[in-house]
Amino acid sequence: MSSTTNPTTATHGHLIAATKVSGSTVYNLKDEKIGRIEDTMIDKGTGSVAFAVLSFGGFMGLGGKFYPLPWLSLRYNTMLDGYVVAIDKETLVNAPSYDDASAVDWSDEAFGRRVSDHWKAVPTHAI
Amino acid sequence: MSSTTNPTTATHGHLIAATKVSGSTVYNLKDEKIGRIEDTMIDKGTGSVAFAVLSFGGFMGLGGKFYPLPWLSLRYNTMLDGYVVAIDKETLVNAPSYDDASAVDWSDEAFGRRVSDHWKAVPTHAI
Repeated sequence: MSSTTNPTTATHGHLIAATKVSGSTVYNLKDEKIGRIEDTMIDKGTGSVAFAVLSFGGFMGLGGKFYPLPWLSLRYNTMLDGYVVAIDKETLVNAPSYDDASAVDWSDEAFGRRVSDHWKAVPTHAI
Repeated sequence: MSSTTNPTTATHGHLIAATKVSGSTVYNLKDEKIGRIEDTMIDKGTGSVAFAVLSFGGFMGLGGKFYPLPWLSLRYNTMLDGYVVAIDKETLVNAPSYDDASAVDWSDEAFGRRVSDHWKAVPTHAI
């Protein structure tokens, strides 16, 4: 917290720095660490965060892949100092993911729609 | 673009990675480089990007400070591969800023309000 080079150190209040979100730990409903947030995807037009990109570091055999999840499926938990998601293994296994960022074309609307469609059907707000 | 460690390399389409926004060059209306984006501040409740945090690297005598600007005041310019802002020096000089991230308390509503109030009065959309 004493760094003068990091432009933002926000961890409370109603705003949070994107650089702080990246690297945050993600937990399941049992308070078990399941992975971390690697990045957030911002909709240029609306300025809304569309997806948080998660990696699972081997948890549930999902290591190495990147999973774009809807921002609204994440709930910040101050006690855990991380995000909680109410998503079971089956939903994740079937979710759109990718291994290599250089192979992802976010301008490919088919991929974006596949991500949105997958998560629309999941009651991710029910935490 | 060949990195496999960076989870996102999105530079086109309607989505952009927050890690890609950070470090982007910022130009004025004369296509002159004036600074760069250091971070983005996300509203936890709405999931909207509230501010982009800019640094000006000495341009106009504003070096070293961080300036939170409304996200909507930024326009991406594909030719320049950076963001353009229509903000003159006087508006910037009087804008809320800070020198040291560790001294900024984003949970202090007075500061957030001061930032919002300052930029509300400025026609930043008129690019």
